[in-house]
Amino acid sequence: MLNFDFHNPTQILFGQGQIAAITPLVPAGARVLMLYGGGSIKRNGVYEEVKAALSGHTVIEFAGIEPNPHYETLMKAVAIVKAEKIDFLLAVGGGSVIDGTKFVAAAALFGEEDPWLILKKGGANINAALPFGSVLTLPATGSEMNAASVVTRAATQEKRAFHSRHVFPKFSVLDPSKTFTLPLRQVGNGVVDAFVHVMEQYLTYPVNAPVQDRWAEGLLLTLIEEGPKTLSEPENLDVRANVMWSATMALNGVIGVGVPQDWATHMIGHELTALYQLDHAQTLAVVLPGILTVRKEAKRAKLLQYAARVWGISEGDEDSRIAAAIARTRSFFEQMGVPTRLSGYGLDASAIDAVVAALEAHKLVKLGEHRDVDAAAARAALELSL
Amino acid sequence: MLNFDFHNPTQILFGQGQIAAITPLVPAGARVLMLYGGGSIKRNGVYEEVKAALSGHTVIEFAGIEPNPHYETLMKAVAIVKAEKIDFLLAVGGGSVIDGTKFVAAAALFGEEDPWLILKKGGANINAALPFGSVLTLPATGSEMNAASVVTRAATQEKRAFHSRHVFPKFSVLDPSKTFTLPLRQVGNGVVDAFVHVMEQYLTYPVNAPVQDRWAEGLLLTLIEEGPKTLSEPENLDVRANVMWSATMALNGVIGVGVPQDWATHMIGHELTALYQLDHAQTLAVVLPGILTVRKEAKRAKLLQYAARVWGISEGDEDSRIAAAIARTRSFFEQMGVPTRLSGYGLDASAIDAVVAALEAHKLVKLGEHRDVDAAAARAALELSL
Repeated sequence: MLNFDFHNPTQILFGQGQIAAITPLVPAGARVLMLYGGGSIKRNGVYEEVKAALSGHTVIEFAGIEPNPHYETLMKAVAIVKAEKIDFLLAVGGGSVIDGTKFVAAAALFGEEDPWLILKKGGANINAALPFGSVLTLPATGSEMNAASVVTRAATQEKRAFHSRHVFPKFSVLDPSKTFTLPLRQVGNGVVDAFVHVMEQYLTYPVNAPVQDRWAEGLLLTLIEEGPKTLSEPENLDVRANVMWSATMALNGVIGVGVPQDWATHMIGHELTALYQLDHAQTLAVVLPGILTVRKEAKRAKLLQYAARVWGISEGDEDSRIAAAIARTRSFFEQMGVPTRLSGYGLDASAIDAVVAALEAHKLVKLGEHRDVDAAAARAALELSL
Repeated sequence: MLNFDFHNPTQILFGQGQIAAITPLVPAGARVLMLYGGGSIKRNGVYEEVKAALSGHTVIEFAGIEPNPHYETLMKAVAIVKAEKIDFLLAVGGGSVIDGTKFVAAAALFGEEDPWLILKKGGANINAALPFGSVLTLPATGSEMNAASVVTRAATQEKRAFHSRHVFPKFSVLDPSKTFTLPLRQVGNGVVDAFVHVMEQYLTYPVNAPVQDRWAEGLLLTLIEEGPKTLSEPENLDVRANVMWSATMALNGVIGVGVPQDWATHMIGHELTALYQLDHAQTLAVVLPGILTVRKEAKRAKLLQYAARVWGISEGDEDSRIAAAIARTRSFFEQMGVPTRLSGYGLDASAIDAVVAALEAHKLVKLGEHRDVDAAAARAALELSL
């Protein structure tokens, strides 16, 4: 196991009816900006429950945070925070709303410099942020219990991440019953997103960290078992709860302590989203199978462990077990309604040229746990998913 | 899964050499009370490393916190805290030192009332505590990353627990190389203690919580694999790291969210320690096999899951699989050098009478996940471990 520093101070309120429990967690007298997305929260009861819980506070609303939240949109929220002397933020929505709120929280206290520098420096230049909580409506990104955020600058098609210990949510509410009415596409995307988050931290090379390995495998097995049931039994509370908790645990840091991490799939996928507006999880479903195949030698030991422990594959020689595990992964994503080939999104080989050019332009050519996933490797991975 | 509220703000610094990293985590200008036990930290290098890390601070020392820390001893530390205007505590030791430090932290700010009330009320009456960190030298109790503490009043032989969100350590250092020189008895005790902590949260009844189940099983499997190696390869850093991390994760709350919990074994065990001064883990090793046997019907589904997933037992009828799993549990504790029968500690049936009388005197007769473990059940469990 590698040395590590783990710290996750976010409080989680989990279960049906928990939105009401936020009342004492928002500071008395706070001026609250409630941030949300396209309005689905007004159709599933979340909006009313949140407003009721905040009835003793001054609340101003900021609607319209889009998927892959835009810097341009978020800067409008920052202006409102300053004009209205807001001192607490509440994100109500999925990962995009929470990611966007993290940026607003940091940008509001960033001083006179251009807040785009937060994203250019990856958050290293943040010294403070407004406190905020979240009410999660879409299990997927894990943003509700981590200190990372991804923001897109629409004007330049740049998708950049930042992280800072200052942007952990103070609390997050996870009410699985609020996910019953999610569109199937978002449900499938969420399961794939969580699955790939685990894989980025698990499928690298062994460092003798059996707790982390087994916990990662426990999340993968749960997503494989419960994920398809979210599509067939959308109002099964236990199923929704297990998927929601898996997605949060997938990226709150605990399975990634002391182990090498990959993240090449995410970096390549970000370019696909920026260029062709694929959903984040769609890009991961396209990229991961190819990356696992192209990086087979460097990942051999963990691929065999993954095949055996997650998919129960024990027959055949090593290469065929690995190939079978990757094929099962691809099938699982397809089962969740997420196509795993570029052709599934109307894209052809010209998209690969564009992604490779973007990776080179952004100097993202030393990716992966060994920093050796270059543009040629990215091209080879994508060619396996045409 | 049941509803839950999870919050664990303790920062963990894990790995060889991490003691030096505490310097910036102790507030500048703080007057620090460094609490420790019998002096083993002066033989394994920990004392010097801690003193070096605190060289910029005012440090007063309080030595002599005993196993199952005594209220009487801790109140001496409280007096020093007040007299010396201490504003930060640093526990350096195992679970007893950290538990004791939690009590000192709370008692120092408890006002004019009798601090024994903290233990009588289980911590519900704590409104503040001094901030403190810990440097862990003995993986076992999990106290380094939770908000619970057990204190014994020597004068009356009462062993009482309290917990409060105010007594999470601000940080804990886990350097597995500092456990190389631990006496084998403490090593074995630590593995058994962590194992039983997991069992108290896992071996109850199913509530459809597959993440929590698999994470618990992941810890049990790791302790079974790595525990014996701590005895045979005491300076294997990876082995020590895996046991240390397992013990912390066993009782930091994460495997216990949203599931029923038992803790009858602990409550019965506490009486054995109070009456006969058995080590905490020794009492758990005696009580658990009997409790699992006596509670077989209520725990049947989870016992079968435990047999299959943790011990790989799939042959035979249900009762024989359960019996085999309990027998393997007993053997594992013995393998770790911890006797599982009262006779192993020179005790006979008269001890059972005394424990049952103590449970009744302390009104601890509605124990377990169903609150139906009474004095007769405790007696039956102990009689299986004569």
